[in-house]
Amino acid sequence: MTSTIKKIGVMTSGGDSPGMNAAIRAVVRTCAFHKIKCIGIYRGYQGLIEGDMVEMSARSVRNIINRGGTILKSARSQEFRTKEGRKKAHDSLVKNGVDALVVIGGDGSFTGGMIFNEEFGYPVIGIPGTIDNDIFGTKFTLGYDTALNTAVEAIDRIRDTASSHDRLFFIEVMGRDAGHIALNVGVGAGAEEILIPEEDLGLDRLLESLEKSRVTGKTSSIVVVAEGDKTGENVFQLAEYVEKNMPDYDIRVTVLGHVQRGGTPTCRDRVLASRMGVKAVETLLEGKSNFMVGISNDELNLTPLERAVKGKSEIDKELIRVSDIMTT
Amino acid sequence: MTSTIKKIGVMTSGGDSPGMNAAIRAVVRTCAFHKIKCIGIYRGYQGLIEGDMVEMSARSVRNIINRGGTILKSARSQEFRTKEGRKKAHDSLVKNGVDALVVIGGDGSFTGGMIFNEEFGYPVIGIPGTIDNDIFGTKFTLGYDTALNTAVEAIDRIRDTASSHDRLFFIEVMGRDAGHIALNVGVGAGAEEILIPEEDLGLDRLLESLEKSRVTGKTSSIVVVAEGDKTGENVFQLAEYVEKNMPDYDIRVTVLGHVQRGGTPTCRDRVLASRMGVKAVETLLEGKSNFMVGISNDELNLTPLERAVKGKSEIDKELIRVSDIMTT
Amino acid sequence: MTSTIKKIGVMTSGGDSPGMNAAIRAVVRTCAFHKIKCIGIYRGYQGLIEGDMVEMSARSVRNIINRGGTILKSARSQEFRTKEGRKKAHDSLVKNGVDALVVIGGDGSFTGGMIFNEEFGYPVIGIPGTIDNDIFGTKFTLGYDTALNTAVEAIDRIRDTASSHDRLFFIEVMGRDAGHIALNVGVGAGAEEILIPEEDLGLDRLLESLEKSRVTGKTSSIVVVAEGDKTGENVFQLAEYVEKNMPDYDIRVTVLGHVQRGGTPTCRDRVLASRMGVKAVETLLEGKSNFMVGISNDELNLTPLERAVKGKSEIDKELIRVSDIMTT
Amino acid sequence: MTSTIKKIGVMTSGGDSPGMNAAIRAVVRTCAFHKIKCIGIYRGYQGLIEGDMVEMSARSVRNIINRGGTILKSARSQEFRTKEGRKKAHDSLVKNGVDALVVIGGDGSFTGGMIFNEEFGYPVIGIPGTIDNDIFGTKFTLGYDTALNTAVEAIDRIRDTASSHDRLFFIEVMGRDAGHIALNVGVGAGAEEILIPEEDLGLDRLLESLEKSRVTGKTSSIVVVAEGDKTGENVFQLAEYVEKNMPDYDIRVTVLGHVQRGGTPTCRDRVLASRMGVKAVETLLEGKSNFMVGISNDELNLTPLERAVKGKSEIDKELIRVSDIMTT
Repeated sequence: MTSTIKKIGVMTSGGDSPGMNAAIRAVVRTCAFHKIKCIGIYRGYQGLIEGDMVEMSARSVRNIINRGGTILKSARSQEFRTKEGRKKAHDSLVKNGVDALVVIGGDGSFTGGMIFNEEFGYPVIGIPGTIDNDIFGTKFTLGYDTALNTAVEAIDRIRDTASSHDRLFFIEVMGRDAGHIALNVGVGAGAEEILIPEEDLGLDRLLESLEKSRVTGKTSSIVVVAEGDKTGENVFQLAEYVEKNMPDYDIRVTVLGHVQRGGTPTCRDRVLASRMGVKAVETLLEGKSNFMVGISNDELNLTPLERAVKGKSEIDKELIRVSDIMTT
Repeated sequence: MTSTIKKIGVMTSGGDSPGMNAAIRAVVRTCAFHKIKCIGIYRGYQGLIEGDMVEMSARSVRNIINRGGTILKSARSQEFRTKEGRKKAHDSLVKNGVDALVVIGGDGSFTGGMIFNEEFGYPVIGIPGTIDNDIFGTKFTLGYDTALNTAVEAIDRIRDTASSHDRLFFIEVMGRDAGHIALNVGVGAGAEEILIPEEDLGLDRLLESLEKSRVTGKTSSIVVVAEGDKTGENVFQLAEYVEKNMPDYDIRVTVLGHVQRGGTPTCRDRVLASRMGVKAVETLLEGKSNFMVGISNDELNLTPLERAVKGKSEIDKELIRVSDIMTT
Repeated sequence: MTSTIKKIGVMTSGGDSPGMNAAIRAVVRTCAFHKIKCIGIYRGYQGLIEGDMVEMSARSVRNIINRGGTILKSARSQEFRTKEGRKKAHDSLVKNGVDALVVIGGDGSFTGGMIFNEEFGYPVIGIPGTIDNDIFGTKFTLGYDTALNTAVEAIDRIRDTASSHDRLFFIEVMGRDAGHIALNVGVGAGAEEILIPEEDLGLDRLLESLEKSRVTGKTSSIVVVAEGDKTGENVFQLAEYVEKNMPDYDIRVTVLGHVQRGGTPTCRDRVLASRMGVKAVETLLEGKSNFMVGISNDELNLTPLERAVKGKSEIDKELIRVSDIMTT
Repeated sequence: MTSTIKKIGVMTSGGDSPGMNAAIRAVVRTCAFHKIKCIGIYRGYQGLIEGDMVEMSARSVRNIINRGGTILKSARSQEFRTKEGRKKAHDSLVKNGVDALVVIGGDGSFTGGMIFNEEFGYPVIGIPGTIDNDIFGTKFTLGYDTALNTAVEAIDRIRDTASSHDRLFFIEVMGRDAGHIALNVGVGAGAEEILIPEEDLGLDRLLESLEKSRVTGKTSSIVVVAEGDKTGENVFQLAEYVEKNMPDYDIRVTVLGHVQRGGTPTCRDRVLASRMGVKAVETLLEGKSNFMVGISNDELNLTPLERAVKGKSEIDKELIRVSDIMTT
């Protein structure tokens, strides 16, 4: 490949997710493979504005494929939301001779990249890194698979206690706008009920369903609730409401929280990150820009950043039905 | 061994803990080894009152050594707190020909056993099963080692995010009356501060210490807080207070909660449970009663139930010092 | 759905794989949902011949979704390879009023099912359960995702030692005919070389590549070798050959072996198993037969058993290239 | 504390074990706490001879408490076995102004330290780091607890397959001279037989015991064999012998190997390492030397290096009995 791109910058932005380090490694090594330079930008767009960056070689990403979080750190940047901030960021890239940018992050990070590309005609490629799996244009985002396993393992543990004490547990998992985690974790953990933002069953349906379970002799139950679910005001109020209406149940609440975000990435997240890193760099080298790398049918693809940002990932309706059948 | 005891009952009582199943298995198999009968009592003292029990053979405890929770289930019993309740329980044992009882549980369960022994002269042996490690007369309780590892793993995950975002995390771990979990988990996870019920540092000391960390360039920090710590009203208020006084910090709170209680027991908890189960049965067969089996210096010992209940397990002062040195 | 099928049998056959229990659970519960009967057949075709089966209800599959292995057990059956054996098996199904069969297993199990269907016109549906992922007609088989993670975790551990001692490790992973595990695990674990049955690089290429690594300053290396790789006679001879030719290297061999086969299934394997179980039963109820349920582009599909058996799953060539780039 | 020691060197030597990094961290931070310098020596005695060392601050050991292996690497040194080699090593320390040495390792490492101390009157303190737990003067060595859990987890996985296929598995665990790992792992994993170097049951006893199991209806079994066990020539020959004599059994062999050596240390190993690191440095500062830090009854102690090297850690006879009872 011959290309005018001689130096690529890579950054992580937004909430961290397992697999980000594997993606950084892949970007860096693909640059080395194609004999172009690679520079790591710290703390996302804010670091970019401040010129907080360092050159990276194949060696500098040794032994990070299995680490959670991001060695390049992440941060939110108010300044990048202003035209002046973005100007500084662009100056910083020009000054450091960086010809193109790979941004690993979510929706917000891509919006930033898209505007940046519009304003300066600067080549940007996105890699979807977020545990929520709520990005249009890709079946899977980096970190999602790991988060599913972390949450399922945690619920397996809680079920030991639930069964031992005949209790009803409400367990909140991540997903402010999307129920992907809740739905898959719920099916994977054998939850009796799954509450997601995409489907408001209403409080009555929930009570009814729990009552049905109780009658058929289930003495312990797990209800998985997505952070963004609107059935109750929040998981604690939900639990309170049920407790008031079904005093027989001994109810507990657990919010899994940030535990879901970190940890050693699964094999799948590592492999996906490696593939996406290669694709991101080679797409830039082919002269393309303003795309997000995604995966569909186990093959990599490209989605214009704008569509990735504006589109909406959809919940798997069939899986909702599977869940209903499993809790017969 | 010749003994008048021909049938032993085993139950779990109070909060469940990993290793309880391994202890049940050990009690059942030791009975089989000594060719006496063993009966499993469901749902602790409540099940005893209701006569909810079943005969168990070496085969009926197959493949449970690695399971969290308790196959015999656990429950609190208001009825057993009354003399009438205990009378029913005793009748139930007599009716079923059970000559002695092994109770796996914590403080409350032993108190019940002790009173029961006093009132009816009925042979009872206790095995300490609780993740809190707060029982006098034993260095380690069943489930404690597992809970430490579960909590440390969870904090390892959170640290990935803390480092990636330069955040300060307050993490609440279990321990209403005792700081054993918090102290060991804090040292094991490399926490910057550890707040335990046994030591009230006060809010000022906490701010001071965090300020010191900040000045020396630490950008992310973990504070481990025992459930029962009294520095703030609770972990959320604590975090709020710090946030108000140190606005530079980006603070998050995670309550590990019931995740710590379940899960596959560690090797150590399984071995300890096996040893204690043997000891409990053989102590009864030797004609002794009203003791708790404990471990000290890697050797099993016996403590009168009364002392186990009234004594107080002490926090390891040396470890507090180690923690201070580690956060230099 | 109205259907002539009133009772479905389910069995596991061939090597066990994580997710088989989740699939059994799904088959049983989908039968319950559609108000038809379900019967579990022990020890695969051999148990079928012997009439070793038991009726199963939604309750009988409680708490198995997270267990490795198969509660229905598995076995090879010489007898089923004979016409007489299959006749006995058919008689056994007729006698027990079983109208259709769901077989969870691999190639060999499907061949059996196919012949059985041919000879007796008996409805059979297959679910691909094998860690090797070598079944035509599905992107993923049950257990494959779990095996990948188990192997990657093991190699992460070994890498600690490899780095600490500047050693070269040859690690054999499962895969007699297919390199799927080796290739994905190799990429996921950041292996320096990956040897798979589909590509014979030859011993010289291996030496050359290791020499290149050595020269660029890599002091420790991991080579992942698929069981069925033909570069050396076996992994031990391979290591010996390299040791003779590169005496500078301190070489060790580890055969991961059966550890890869068991364990708690990942979230993905549990969800896949649940979906496939539903699909298998509902396909039978729709009057279709002689298919294998598969997944492609995250959607379930059906492949005639004959094609599933005769077709060949192909290795991901792009991933071989990714691996090469990563070890630049 | 006032002391003539102003700079301490720390190294790891011999086989790596989980917890070594936590111990390095503790040594470094305790030096920082006492405001003395600390220097990390790479690759054990060999690195010492070559002067391969670097100054370490509290910051340089950040985020290593949870990593397996050793960041200081380890190596064997033929040269240090000669007087000339040790002379070079001593010169190297003098030249770098290092006043005392903390050696983290096993028997061999301590022997080196002891001779070194004898020849040059140089202050040396040992910290027992080895997964084998075979050091006299301490109940527990660093890495032992982690290795136990790694092995038990692996066997849990194998048991899934063993039960599913009614197989007999021979599983070799580490322990060339000592059966600590095998005995504890065997009890923890619920093995039917445990073969250790300390007790030669003989092949006949093994056959007899397996036959007994078979007769009582056990269809699957796990035999845990210590590397150094002498019942058969090795685990493969052992399996072959049993297969020949008990053709009914379907037998498999797994050698866990180096997987046991790495991985994230358990909470206990991290805490123990932290405590031992503090003790090692403070012992030197108190003017003492030529001791190994150990733990007994959960309290730290000191054993003269000579006794640590010459003494023999003993197997827990009571636990052998527990194992026998458990397999009734």
